[in-house]
Amino acid sequence: MQPASSVGIVVPQTAHFTTPLTLKSGAVLPSYDLVYETYGMLNADKSNAILVCHALSGNHHVAGVYAEQDKKPGWWDNMVGPGKPIDTDRFFVIGLNNLGGCHGSTGPASIDPITGQPFGSHFPLVTVEDWVESQARLADSLGIRQFAVIMGGSLGGMQALHWSIKHPERVRHCLVIASAPKLTAQNIAFNDVARQAILTDPDFHGGDFYAHDTRPRRGLRLARMLGHITYLSDDVMGSKFGRVLRSGAFNYGYDVEFEIESYLRYQGDKFAESFDANTYLLMTKALDYFDPTHHSGGKLSDALKPAQADFLVLSFTSDWRFAPERSREIVKALLDNECRVSYAEITSGHGHDAFLMPDAHYHSLVRAYMERVAS
Amino acid sequence: MQPASSVGIVVPQTAHFTTPLTLKSGAVLPSYDLVYETYGMLNADKSNAILVCHALSGNHHVAGVYAEQDKKPGWWDNMVGPGKPIDTDRFFVIGLNNLGGCHGSTGPASIDPITGQPFGSHFPLVTVEDWVESQARLADSLGIRQFAVIMGGSLGGMQALHWSIKHPERVRHCLVIASAPKLTAQNIAFNDVARQAILTDPDFHGGDFYAHDTRPRRGLRLARMLGHITYLSDDVMGSKFGRVLRSGAFNYGYDVEFEIESYLRYQGDKFAESFDANTYLLMTKALDYFDPTHHSGGKLSDALKPAQADFLVLSFTSDWRFAPERSREIVKALLDNECRVSYAEITSGHGHDAFLMPDAHYHSLVRAYMERVAS
Repeated sequence: MQPASSVGIVVPQTAHFTTPLTLKSGAVLPSYDLVYETYGMLNADKSNAILVCHALSGNHHVAGVYAEQDKKPGWWDNMVGPGKPIDTDRFFVIGLNNLGGCHGSTGPASIDPITGQPFGSHFPLVTVEDWVESQARLADSLGIRQFAVIMGGSLGGMQALHWSIKHPERVRHCLVIASAPKLTAQNIAFNDVARQAILTDPDFHGGDFYAHDTRPRRGLRLARMLGHITYLSDDVMGSKFGRVLRSGAFNYGYDVEFEIESYLRYQGDKFAESFDANTYLLMTKALDYFDPTHHSGGKLSDALKPAQADFLVLSFTSDWRFAPERSREIVKALLDNECRVSYAEITSGHGHDAFLMPDAHYHSLVRAYMERVAS
Repeated sequence: MQPASSVGIVVPQTAHFTTPLTLKSGAVLPSYDLVYETYGMLNADKSNAILVCHALSGNHHVAGVYAEQDKKPGWWDNMVGPGKPIDTDRFFVIGLNNLGGCHGSTGPASIDPITGQPFGSHFPLVTVEDWVESQARLADSLGIRQFAVIMGGSLGGMQALHWSIKHPERVRHCLVIASAPKLTAQNIAFNDVARQAILTDPDFHGGDFYAHDTRPRRGLRLARMLGHITYLSDDVMGSKFGRVLRSGAFNYGYDVEFEIESYLRYQGDKFAESFDANTYLLMTKALDYFDPTHHSGGKLSDALKPAQADFLVLSFTSDWRFAPERSREIVKALLDNECRVSYAEITSGHGHDAFLMPDAHYHSLVRAYMERVAS
């Protein structure tokens, strides 16, 4: 039995779209699938829907489990469920795998109907704007005209932010968590090292590794190890791992010595076996490209002008990937536009990963905000 | 003609040692070479010598040039020379390439006299302690009983610090710049990602790539790209590169788009052609291992108890690799021991690299300190 606060056993669904989608790059996807999950009940006037947008390596499995014995619930299970901050007794919550993903939605590993082979290097780059467009079509297919809430952490927060600009009439509340209005040069630099690790792995085969029955494990492993460092704070790494040695002594070689090495290599290995390298590349590019001011040129407040939603913006003190300062830029621009915005900088040692953690203060802030959201 | 503030054209020298050196790991080097340069004149009582210890990718070429047309002076040429903060009109300055290096001193790429082949994977790991021992032997060979100053930035500062503990009677002044008493878990994590990039490069051949007439360029390039990010501050990256696009528009592919990508890849490529991968591995391990408290267990002040030198400790505000906080740990421990210590936290946007930059305040602090150092 799952606890009463769990949405229980869930089953992913697939929506197939046959209206061609013209992407930001100019490329066209003639048709595509989006895999998604829903939790809770959509009410009669379809006004209680919440869209949860995922981050770099996330997917549609936000909450619940796939079987009674399933030890690993969805990635935001601590946030979404009956009586949880995002309360599925009141709201109808949708999680989806973004286009270009590797968990069921059409992506680089999917079969290209034209060639009968995996897309691989032929899969077009997709952007936050493209995701929002595909999410809007999914909403249309479910008959949802307006979301009560669109929310996300990190890259997910960027999608929520873009929704508020692109479809202001379709978003009543926008929750932007541990996010940023655009990447800094340092953010892009980390992403590019990760990409170069994958792109230069001999097993990448220019993105068409599927045909070679291999995967660029080395590159993907390095990308994940590096990513992990940037998700954690220096402090939490220090308190969790410090300089502790696995064997208690130096062995003067290149095998694992420090606990932190063991942890990172394990995380890297696990990820390299399960995640698609082309999806990783594409997701980091979507991050790099996102910049609401890119076309309006300059001021974030100008770019956010169309937004009509109420906003909750949250940041975490030890997050150095998307530092609180970056969230404050969003808040400042929204205030310049006289938007209704709540903001909190939550004290946490967990770095960027804090947005996934069941921190009491964090959850009670989301819960308090959600109490004023009409369902 | 070189400017009057240059030490001019310099010629490296090689010292050959035949007394076996037993390393911290237990391995023994039966004989080895150290390549070094000197600037200025050693005075009659040999009391005006300064030892400059290098950091991860540094070498013996601290100052001056190799030819009249040489455009690239030594790596600390702005600091060392006639009338410069480290004034070669007063002092006799020694720069050496550390054991295990790849610029002339015995290292992994050197020929093992026993096999007639490059050492490669057989070259033992060396530590900061081993370097200090080999440096002490070089000093002995030059008849230098006591240094006026031993100094270094980053990993070089660790060597200076260890000198002050191991050979307190041989160091009058110790300059520890942009350094740390030991690495944090995050520091080790970054080093391990760099090492894994090299170790998993198929061209690494377990360290014996010389025999295969190749080098692990991909791995070394990634290691350097990553290193570079940690040497610079987020701010300086932002002001130098920002989100500027090379072609002015997104090209929706994985070729260079942002200027920061172009810069990092260029730095990585250049480094991968010139630096030895085994040396890189070994230097990062020396960094990871350094911890004066490792054997004394716990308190830095206990570990620093033997030190008798006067200290100048300098840190830079935007250095997040070895943050000012890490320098303050050293200062605090020295003060606990009632050592004479000067400390300054220098305002700089250049991150860790600031210690190599000709910042006016930084240089005037070193200059002022050096005025009280007897030659």
